[in-house]
Amino acid sequence: MNQPLPVLFITRKAHFNAAHKLYNPKWTKEENDEVFGKCANENWHGHNFDLLVTIKGHPNPETGFVMDLKRLKKIIDTEIVEKLDHKNLNLDVPFLKDILPSIENIVIAIWEILTQHLPEGVYLHKLHLVETKNNSVEYYGPSVLL
Amino acid sequence: MNQPLPVLFITRKAHFNAAHKLYNPKWTKEENDEVFGKCANENWHGHNFDLLVTIKGHPNPETGFVMDLKRLKKIIDTEIVEKLDHKNLNLDVPFLKDILPSIENIVIAIWEILTQHLPEGVYLHKLHLVETKNNSVEYYGPSVLL
Amino acid sequence: MNQPLPVLFITRKAHFNAAHKLYNPKWTKEENDEVFGKCANENWHGHNFDLLVTIKGHPNPETGFVMDLKRLKKIIDTEIVEKLDHKNLNLDVPFLKDILPSIENIVIAIWEILTQHLPEGVYLHKLHLVETKNNSVEYYGPSVLL
Amino acid sequence: MNQPLPVLFITRKAHFNAAHKLYNPKWTKEENDEVFGKCANENWHGHNFDLLVTIKGHPNPETGFVMDLKRLKKIIDTEIVEKLDHKNLNLDVPFLKDILPSIENIVIAIWEILTQHLPEGVYLHKLHLVETKNNSVEYYGPSVLL
Amino acid sequence: MNQPLPVLFITRKAHFNAAHKLYNPKWTKEENDEVFGKCANENWHGHNFDLLVTIKGHPNPETGFVMDLKRLKKIIDTEIVEKLDHKNLNLDVPFLKDILPSIENIVIAIWEILTQHLPEGVYLHKLHLVETKNNSVEYYGPSVLL
Amino acid sequence: MNQPLPVLFITRKAHFNAAHKLYNPKWTKEENDEVFGKCANENWHGHNFDLLVTIKGHPNPETGFVMDLKRLKKIIDTEIVEKLDHKNLNLDVPFLKDILPSIENIVIAIWEILTQHLPEGVYLHKLHLVETKNNSVEYYGPSVLL
Repeated sequence: MNQPLPVLFITRKAHFNAAHKLYNPKWTKEENDEVFGKCANENWHGHNFDLLVTIKGHPNPETGFVMDLKRLKKIIDTEIVEKLDHKNLNLDVPFLKDILPSIENIVIAIWEILTQHLPEGVYLHKLHLVETKNNSVEYYGPSVLL
Repeated sequence: MNQPLPVLFITRKAHFNAAHKLYNPKWTKEENDEVFGKCANENWHGHNFDLLVTIKGHPNPETGFVMDLKRLKKIIDTEIVEKLDHKNLNLDVPFLKDILPSIENIVIAIWEILTQHLPEGVYLHKLHLVETKNNSVEYYGPSVLL
Repeated sequence: MNQPLPVLFITRKAHFNAAHKLYNPKWTKEENDEVFGKCANENWHGHNFDLLVTIKGHPNPETGFVMDLKRLKKIIDTEIVEKLDHKNLNLDVPFLKDILPSIENIVIAIWEILTQHLPEGVYLHKLHLVETKNNSVEYYGPSVLL
Repeated sequence: MNQPLPVLFITRKAHFNAAHKLYNPKWTKEENDEVFGKCANENWHGHNFDLLVTIKGHPNPETGFVMDLKRLKKIIDTEIVEKLDHKNLNLDVPFLKDILPSIENIVIAIWEILTQHLPEGVYLHKLHLVETKNNSVEYYGPSVLL
Repeated sequence: MNQPLPVLFITRKAHFNAAHKLYNPKWTKEENDEVFGKCANENWHGHNFDLLVTIKGHPNPETGFVMDLKRLKKIIDTEIVEKLDHKNLNLDVPFLKDILPSIENIVIAIWEILTQHLPEGVYLHKLHLVETKNNSVEYYGPSVLL
Repeated sequence: MNQPLPVLFITRKAHFNAAHKLYNPKWTKEENDEVFGKCANENWHGHNFDLLVTIKGHPNPETGFVMDLKRLKKIIDTEIVEKLDHKNLNLDVPFLKDILPSIENIVIAIWEILTQHLPEGVYLHKLHLVETKNNSVEYYGPSVLL
């Protein structure tokens, strides 16, 4: 009987610097201040974001690679980093239009894009978005239930 | 049919500096030295501990948040950090009384406290306690089996 | 003859998240884009800034301290972090008014403030402002010449 | 009814510096350059590798330990680090003979060794091999399927 | 005329975990609490300390080294780390006897030891003792004046 | 009387992965093994090197910059990183030909190159080459004497 093929999880880190604010336009300024505190500052604030993209798959026997990391880097750069780096997440990013840019909502939106650009046999496993040294979010896609 | 609600995992990092020793009072000093080595030093040693608390839940559509991180920070600070920071883990901490303060036992005790203070719909997913650059423990709660 | 008193250099790290853009209002948009590139994005971008404040002085023989670090932390928090954290460096900060917020200019402005709040016998030695993992600036005050 | 025994995940970090190249001897130099780019440089390149070994098990009630970390460190040092540190991964390592030393293949080979040296009741859970700040691989063993 | 010989500054990092408290025995408990706050906790607290030792000298033309780093490591380990690691800085360390173990006083005491063990032509340039992510002290020896 | 112009120190971090060995061809293999230990492994070993380049100068009043960091990055990438990344420091690098590639000698060679490519009014202040988490070298140029 055959040995099952090994499954490897590869993580590539990307980085972008962006401005945002947390502000629900359906609420008053006071309600926003109460819920979002300093993060509602109307003149924006910003962060250095790290994005860790984890894919999974079987290694190719010819190359030893689950996926060429230069190709993965190019997908992340083209589809995500170029659209977010040195941008305003509330105003400048088409794929975040009408979305409150909490780290939760940003990472769900990034998942929907990246999952469409991976080659056959490679699956998006996790996105980890790090906003500050102390705060981060992980998302394993819509099929993980509570 | 409805899309399942997305599940997000949010991590907040906290920090405390504490002294401890590893010493089983049922054993002789020699037995303790043999098992625990330098960690049994009777005059204590100490660490800068990082505690990473990961919760999970659905994002609130109004705020984009699984849970307000300021509220999570306050729970961790009040229930855990204030009781451990600049303390002696063998002598000063009521919730560690009669517990050998290995990182394994510390993290189990922290789980039991934090799990009682989370709001409805938010679940404790993981605790990650980092003792040194090289040693750490993760705990996913009592329902994870070997 | 007396031994000279030892001189110690103490560093305290602070942190703030802010938005800014690099834009010279005397220039056209094209000139700004050419010089400042992505940093001129009109809708702002942002960073997690680390500020390392180094003071110097003799340790007090009673306390072993050059300066109580809780007091230094309070000065940095009150005078600098509360005025910069979750703010827009071009719009929200009185002490940066009419100053192009490059890291060079920010750090000079911070120096002028902090140097006025240190206790007698303690001197500001260096400010180190870290904008990203790869870029930072150090300033030793106006008395250091090329 | 009994409470199930808690399961803890302990991570120990090790480190080695090594040289390697990615080169498939069945291909021409041109094919290797096209697939592996800079990593095919015939005169080698190298990295500082971090290896994070995560084991799982129940804590021993007498010691509070899943496993004595000094013993785990010794196994990792003897079986892995001494064989890889300051070595050429293509030429010097018996357990990587005839294996293309991609991080995927290295971590599979390490798993097969470490899993044989753990004491009863302790299981290898994950290996995480970090090649650069931006690239890493995780492996959960042959029983995890896609 | 000859080119002056180049001067290189080499830094080696060491690490130790220790307990201490800040407590002046000439004062009452209340005075200690007021000055030292949480750091006066009578049952100790502790830290993971990093010690960065910087030496300077000319590189040896035969080896390219200012000093063999394995030899420097051995001096730091024997003279400092073995005496401080997993120790109580108030009670267990002969060279800190009767010294209030503030980071300022610790680093002065380490300087006096290390400076006696360096080979001819190699000079101690700086000690950098890091107590927490946010607090550290640097010392350039007794010849640096304010 | 005029205020002296402020002097700012700007640091840009670069990164390269390379192989090397420490081996003096004038010595026997035994002499090399004795002096260089594991670093003399004939089949090479390697590292992820960080290079921190610190320049100094006055900020330009129009831009707030001592030097455009994109331009500095380009100089470092073109003159240094492209010549060292994924290379063998003993075999592949013209500017290290006949030089024993200790971190001391590498950093002296990098200084000689970079100092020729800086714009007028900007001076190279320091190079900091980090070989591992524990070992690094700093160089302030040939004019600093012991």
